[in-house]
Amino acid sequence: MSATSPTPPVAEPQPLLAELKRRLHEVDDLESAGAVLGWDQSTYMPSGGADARGRQLATLSALAHQKLTDPELGRLLDALRGHEAALPPDSDDASLIRVARRDYLRAVRVPSAFMAELARHGAASFQAWTVARPADDFDAVRPLLERTVDYSRQLADFFPGYAHIADPLIDVADEGVTAADVRTLFAALRAELVPLARAITDQPAADDACLRQHYPEAAQIAFGEALIRRYGFDFERGRQDKTHHPFTTRFAAGDVRITTRINEDDLREGLFATLHEAGHALYEQGISPRLDGTPLGRGTSSGIHESQSRLWENLVGRSLPFWEHSYPGLQQTFPEQLGAVPLDTFYRAVNKVERSLIRVEADEVTYNLHVMIRFDLELALLEGTLAVRDLPDAWRERYRADLGVAPPDDRDGVLQDMHWYAGQVGGMFQGYTLGNVIGAQLFAAARAARPEIATGIAAGEFDPLRDWLTEQIYRYGRKLTTAELLQRATGGPLSTGPYLAYLRQKYGALYTLPPG
Amino acid sequence: MSATSPTPPVAEPQPLLAELKRRLHEVDDLESAGAVLGWDQSTYMPSGGADARGRQLATLSALAHQKLTDPELGRLLDALRGHEAALPPDSDDASLIRVARRDYLRAVRVPSAFMAELARHGAASFQAWTVARPADDFDAVRPLLERTVDYSRQLADFFPGYAHIADPLIDVADEGVTAADVRTLFAALRAELVPLARAITDQPAADDACLRQHYPEAAQIAFGEALIRRYGFDFERGRQDKTHHPFTTRFAAGDVRITTRINEDDLREGLFATLHEAGHALYEQGISPRLDGTPLGRGTSSGIHESQSRLWENLVGRSLPFWEHSYPGLQQTFPEQLGAVPLDTFYRAVNKVERSLIRVEADEVTYNLHVMIRFDLELALLEGTLAVRDLPDAWRERYRADLGVAPPDDRDGVLQDMHWYAGQVGGMFQGYTLGNVIGAQLFAAARAARPEIATGIAAGEFDPLRDWLTEQIYRYGRKLTTAELLQRATGGPLSTGPYLAYLRQKYGALYTLPPG
Repeated sequence: MSATSPTPPVAEPQPLLAELKRRLHEVDDLESAGAVLGWDQSTYMPSGGADARGRQLATLSALAHQKLTDPELGRLLDALRGHEAALPPDSDDASLIRVARRDYLRAVRVPSAFMAELARHGAASFQAWTVARPADDFDAVRPLLERTVDYSRQLADFFPGYAHIADPLIDVADEGVTAADVRTLFAALRAELVPLARAITDQPAADDACLRQHYPEAAQIAFGEALIRRYGFDFERGRQDKTHHPFTTRFAAGDVRITTRINEDDLREGLFATLHEAGHALYEQGISPRLDGTPLGRGTSSGIHESQSRLWENLVGRSLPFWEHSYPGLQQTFPEQLGAVPLDTFYRAVNKVERSLIRVEADEVTYNLHVMIRFDLELALLEGTLAVRDLPDAWRERYRADLGVAPPDDRDGVLQDMHWYAGQVGGMFQGYTLGNVIGAQLFAAARAARPEIATGIAAGEFDPLRDWLTEQIYRYGRKLTTAELLQRATGGPLSTGPYLAYLRQKYGALYTLPPG
Repeated sequence: MSATSPTPPVAEPQPLLAELKRRLHEVDDLESAGAVLGWDQSTYMPSGGADARGRQLATLSALAHQKLTDPELGRLLDALRGHEAALPPDSDDASLIRVARRDYLRAVRVPSAFMAELARHGAASFQAWTVARPADDFDAVRPLLERTVDYSRQLADFFPGYAHIADPLIDVADEGVTAADVRTLFAALRAELVPLARAITDQPAADDACLRQHYPEAAQIAFGEALIRRYGFDFERGRQDKTHHPFTTRFAAGDVRITTRINEDDLREGLFATLHEAGHALYEQGISPRLDGTPLGRGTSSGIHESQSRLWENLVGRSLPFWEHSYPGLQQTFPEQLGAVPLDTFYRAVNKVERSLIRVEADEVTYNLHVMIRFDLELALLEGTLAVRDLPDAWRERYRADLGVAPPDDRDGVLQDMHWYAGQVGGMFQGYTLGNVIGAQLFAAARAARPEIATGIAAGEFDPLRDWLTEQIYRYGRKLTTAELLQRATGGPLSTGPYLAYLRQKYGALYTLPPG
């Protein structure tokens, strides 16, 4: 306490860091509260609550945005540059400062009032879609979707300098990825998948009659929950509810929720929705609790997220070893429906490849073709080369051209996915195909690294796989980017090789395939 | 548009009013979001979500409080004094300014940081209680309750000048009512109710074995919901879920939710919880939608609110005419349990008077004795004449003295009600007894005003009663105070006369009573 001690040249980092965290926690609290309101809106809210819910979501969104764009937060982030540079880049604190700055710089481009209007509009549009889809009434949501396209363009225009108007929107979900990158990837996949799908669908179709029987809802839900409990989904830190369009949401490290929808006349719909969403949830539940309540405490990108949902749904949940272990339990649950159905019939049925209409029910071979249609259409909407009023016809034409089938109505056509009706067009779909590719890449690396992963799956033990994924991917949250995670976990960048090899191997065992 | 037009002497009221409403809507959005998070916490939240939920509720509460205490809001309310004075006092706008000012002046007394801590502590304490009650573990919540008492004292002390430390806390729930008022009322009731209860419980008890059979949950819920649908509960603008301790909550005019708990071995618990909460909800659903999203858009006091829950639960739902109409349907729902039970037996069973342990299951005669115990104990805790560690014993002693029974454990003793464990001691219970008194007073006035109300109830038609209550009470929200509503609807102030007359008449038909 000498009177001559010099004033420190920079402010002490610890109080600044504490203030940064306090502010970021507040933003996270508001965003998490918004997530609770959104979950409720999609699960339990009575229809009379819709208007007020839109206003409430708009207020929370605007406040979160105001807090995130507070100039004082920018000053704190500037003042912490020296501290950040002195820390190891993948330390929690350096990562927090780096990612918070990225979020801050993105957020300050967009006015809070615009964010509030976007949230309000998104809630109203979503509510209208929940009514319009069952009623097959595209006209009821058309003006809302026109506004969504307009808002999405305005949102992109807050980030000038893009090569394609979708780039800023894709960047939010999959940082660093551009429309051109996605087009290149999709073209490469298309060249392989189209002949593969054609070769398979030219052969006699698998018989899936065993799945299209009456399966009572309660038993379906109980069986699905038993499966994901074995996956490691922690019901003390999460739950499952029913909704129109399944999704996963996170309110905290200790509260990660999934949703499903049950079709009593088709076992696939609810079962694989549950396995898919559980994959998302295992990722979120596996993030280090130290990161909870900060911008680091959630999944890093749409591509990595979908890699996990697709991995647990398909690479595990539609595999033969998985069902060799789990099928007897399913037969016990549904003895009348499946007691006399051999495993091979069931396995072929859940892997039936067909030219179908519904993305979320599509098989692994044609799934990406559904995604590509949506990706191309949203780009066209944003470019202005396609008008919303022409979208239903454009949808039908693309389905006819790419999949050889066309929906008889809009319900199973342009109204089938909630994404465009929740307030944004652009950046909503590329993650699914990125996820398929990344999921296969990670799964191959995992199995190569730990032989007990494959033997575990065959024995209904998923800890080895989940532990490897937690160690390599989950625990980091947003500390590492997609590219950094891939490099560390697989030793290389994104590659379609493992995914195409997986498809050829799996479907080569079921069908005669063209030479690869 | 003359250049010589004088500057108006005061600012135009309309833009000021619009700005006032914008600010009040924002506060309401935050409070409603908090209500959604609170509802979720009590219904569906997994235990792992508790800590983060507490933080989120604290953030929302602090932000709502900051917005409500913004000095700019105070300036707007000042600037609108002239406009308010020029309007009829019960116009929407004059009422809004008046009530908003009352809320503002109350809120500015309490620091936002204190409100946030109160919300955080309340959520943590509530969560601990949900575990401690089934475990019969008072010690687990004792330190939390000690802090609650301390915080409640601090809260009261932000309003100096009270005669009793509970007065500011009671005033929040029942404006204008003091501890002294409640004590006077309770003493008068006690003088009548104690001999009445003694006379009845000295006679042979009603046989309630018919209610203590196995009643499957799903059928109980369906029957209860059918009843309240007839009451007029609008399921398009509300819903019912299960919880530990039933409550009603409002997120908007179009989203008013009730909760119940089902005991498969006692038909009363769930059935009358549903009817009780439906009474609260009819009130909230009946408030003029014009007032939605403002401080006027909810019930005016705890006393009026409980008058509606008790009216629909007891004065209607435990009456003979009601069951003359509804009992055949109940028998059809539970033919094995009730097919051979005559209406008279059932009616006597649901109105069984006994010296019991659980307030929410208590009969109409002894119910207020349960309330008085709690009221006296919370006053003693606040005064400091009773320590929290001595509360379980004090509880048992009072039960022995007043009701002649004592709980064998704390689960059905001091842990039975959630109120003290949700963050406040003081002002939590007087409303229940005020509600009994007011409910009977309103019911008598309603029946005197419209003969079709009584004939309606006997025919299972509740529109006449609900319409009268909507016209006289519900639609006003907080525009009128308890005293103003009572004066308009009954022509006089609060009076115990109708309540005591009702009890004497109803129970005089079932038992031999002492002279009144």
